[in-house]
Amino acid sequence: MFTDSLLKQLHLIAGSRYVFTDEPTRMAYGHDETEDFSFPPTVVVKPGTADEVSQIMKLANEHVIPVVPIGARTGLSGGALSIHGGIGLSMERFTSLEIDEKNLQAITGPAVITQVLREAALEKGLFYPPDPSSQGSCSIGGNVAENSGGARAVKYGVTKDYILNLEVVLPSGEIIWTGANTLKNSTGYNLTQLMVGSEGTLGIITKIVVKLIPKPTHNVLMLIPFFKAAQACEAVAAIFRAGVVPSALEFMERDAIDWGLKYLDHVNLDIKPEVEAHLLVEVDGNYPDVLFSEAEKIMGVAEQFAIDEPLFADTEEQKNALWKLRRTVAEAVKSNSVYKEEDTVVPRYELPVLLKGIKQIGKKYGFHSVCYGHAGDGNLHVNIIKGDMTDENWKVEVPKGIREIFELTVSLKGTLSGEHGIGYVQKNYMDIAFSPVQLQLMKGIKQLFDPKNILNPGKILPDAIA
Amino acid sequence: MFTDSLLKQLHLIAGSRYVFTDEPTRMAYGHDETEDFSFPPTVVVKPGTADEVSQIMKLANEHVIPVVPIGARTGLSGGALSIHGGIGLSMERFTSLEIDEKNLQAITGPAVITQVLREAALEKGLFYPPDPSSQGSCSIGGNVAENSGGARAVKYGVTKDYILNLEVVLPSGEIIWTGANTLKNSTGYNLTQLMVGSEGTLGIITKIVVKLIPKPTHNVLMLIPFFKAAQACEAVAAIFRAGVVPSALEFMERDAIDWGLKYLDHVNLDIKPEVEAHLLVEVDGNYPDVLFSEAEKIMGVAEQFAIDEPLFADTEEQKNALWKLRRTVAEAVKSNSVYKEEDTVVPRYELPVLLKGIKQIGKKYGFHSVCYGHAGDGNLHVNIIKGDMTDENWKVEVPKGIREIFELTVSLKGTLSGEHGIGYVQKNYMDIAFSPVQLQLMKGIKQLFDPKNILNPGKILPDAIA
Repeated sequence: MFTDSLLKQLHLIAGSRYVFTDEPTRMAYGHDETEDFSFPPTVVVKPGTADEVSQIMKLANEHVIPVVPIGARTGLSGGALSIHGGIGLSMERFTSLEIDEKNLQAITGPAVITQVLREAALEKGLFYPPDPSSQGSCSIGGNVAENSGGARAVKYGVTKDYILNLEVVLPSGEIIWTGANTLKNSTGYNLTQLMVGSEGTLGIITKIVVKLIPKPTHNVLMLIPFFKAAQACEAVAAIFRAGVVPSALEFMERDAIDWGLKYLDHVNLDIKPEVEAHLLVEVDGNYPDVLFSEAEKIMGVAEQFAIDEPLFADTEEQKNALWKLRRTVAEAVKSNSVYKEEDTVVPRYELPVLLKGIKQIGKKYGFHSVCYGHAGDGNLHVNIIKGDMTDENWKVEVPKGIREIFELTVSLKGTLSGEHGIGYVQKNYMDIAFSPVQLQLMKGIKQLFDPKNILNPGKILPDAIA
Repeated sequence: MFTDSLLKQLHLIAGSRYVFTDEPTRMAYGHDETEDFSFPPTVVVKPGTADEVSQIMKLANEHVIPVVPIGARTGLSGGALSIHGGIGLSMERFTSLEIDEKNLQAITGPAVITQVLREAALEKGLFYPPDPSSQGSCSIGGNVAENSGGARAVKYGVTKDYILNLEVVLPSGEIIWTGANTLKNSTGYNLTQLMVGSEGTLGIITKIVVKLIPKPTHNVLMLIPFFKAAQACEAVAAIFRAGVVPSALEFMERDAIDWGLKYLDHVNLDIKPEVEAHLLVEVDGNYPDVLFSEAEKIMGVAEQFAIDEPLFADTEEQKNALWKLRRTVAEAVKSNSVYKEEDTVVPRYELPVLLKGIKQIGKKYGFHSVCYGHAGDGNLHVNIIKGDMTDENWKVEVPKGIREIFELTVSLKGTLSGEHGIGYVQKNYMDIAFSPVQLQLMKGIKQLFDPKNILNPGKILPDAIA
């Protein structure tokens, strides 16, 4: 597939120092944070401009070579895996970042690390709210590709809610902008939102115009221990019905917090053995009195359930420690065992039903799960732990259990993924959420943008229809 | 085109009392609020269920008959006009409405009047923010079709930001849901957002799942007179840069407010002759002290410009009068003269440049314009007044001027429509905002959903490529 002449052309387009065929580089760009998959590209190219990306796409289109856009490789659904080999297009050189204070916008390259964008905005008194747990290492381009969320989505929305306009290189090599740099837009079909969450299968994002908002100046953070996990879930919907919109409302099962604590030696929490779960709740705004009053309302709701003494984080240090604990859970689980992570999402009130169902399904198929996530959004991450399960059961029984979990999710009017995307690992569950009619529409969209199926092939759509 | 046998089948599907071919009904369903257009459908059908809509679409598809979904006929871009005759599909019987307090959602039929939805939510302590000026007469289905905005979009977002899931009948007659009833969703291509703002050209919306939020309990409203219109525009961006996000930030040129006042006899305002424009500014929330402090911050910004004494609306009655004044401007303009309304939108800070340019272009082509709109979003409604202009100039010169206005808008990184849609009247300006590549993508999407081009044909896409 890869002739020397092709490789030579890639050298000419991107410059030889940005084309790699050596084993270590190919291996490094052959994985993301999804399980332990390894799908190295045949060649890694690191273009520097949209024009270079365009030339590469034209070449790939002509020779029908797969191209996989690769970001910071922190994805959890295998979106950046080169499952058919081909060109691994690392976007890492697209690091331009400009904060437009006058319009409360940022214009950023896809390789800018989410936290770098956040901090650049904060320096100007502005706020970019989406904050995936991997914000210190994931890039904004990947966030757009997967429509990432994070803890603050419950108040501020997800990545899609902040994307105004995208510069995109289409599989044909054409370069377009998807919309305009405006807060409102009713001008033709919404190509911007079609691109957000399309997991690098419709086009390659080379520039991103992002909405910023004024920065909230204060916050209050509290950790509330619940003796019953189901009650922690019930409290979530009750907080909103009390008229409070927290800026974060996170759920952690006992295991999640215990494993997180083991992973971080400098955080100490004295948790009673009977505590089954915690809610980590934040409110933010500009007026401390208001925040204390909202925190009181939240505690008023929580006290209707069986809870232990809450912990109020008083200092920035305490707040950072609690957030670090929450954000470390995924890593802690990973370090503990082989696992599979599902990203279920349901209407908020259905969360207790979902949690209960997951545990029952786990019993039926013989797996233990550690659940945590963005409960305010109804978004529950289900970590299925391999532990001492046999390889046979892991391969045969667990997928059946996952299918049942998704069936339950969909029956509750939820869906497969809230913020991680479908990518490689969930695609063959898509039939649970969508009928053949819907899947054919999605396939039609893919074919419209990418008739030769060269851009990130084998993602999103189930094998049966792709 | 319309055989008796076809008509008989429509009678069988929808019931004879819901099929109309009489002249008065056809005329009544042949216009919306766009200029003085009249494009009556050949037959008006008022189906009662998604299944009936499906059967009608199958029939229309088989016989290649145009079908135009018709809502409350308040549109401003001609989206509901049956420009090729055919079946006018009035959705007025889809009035179901259920508020799901537990999940902070509403499940509504497309015919529910926006204000009815708002009030049903408010009764449960919940809030549906989008509030087009026509909220008392427009329907939520039309709002979804056009991605409507309104005054509160500046803080709360537009219709698209509240749509979680849609039941849609495709041109083939297939019935699908576009997504899930969840706050977050990274599961396949975003069919929901592709449908929002597609102006009834991709499918017929038969049910809508809407996100609600807790209701803010208080607000403060002020009307600030500016001696210079350009300075009123400048103040808009400055308010955000001061860290305040108002819940409404509306701009009205002097003419707009004068014409509105003439139209409403019960509202009295004593405006100095030198005042060129007003900003109507609202802040909302749950804590009156906070709102007063934010109002002070806003006045601190405004006082950096040449302003007259602001008016603070103290009572509900005063607030309603000011809002009524703002919402009446469109009707007042309409009653005053034949006019064309453009819905320009630019990044917020560019508003003064846009306003100045519009006036210059008006001078060049000999037309007067009355400008007002949602300045906080950079969304300026430009009402071009016919007045005593000759019919010849109205038909030949004005479109040239509109083209220049849109060219200016796009050069400022803005676009043609912020919230009214493209529909029939703006479609031949689409080449200003989009290249042939983008337009072909949009055409491809249309063909994918509607290969026979039967659903609301002749809208959005320019004649040159449609």
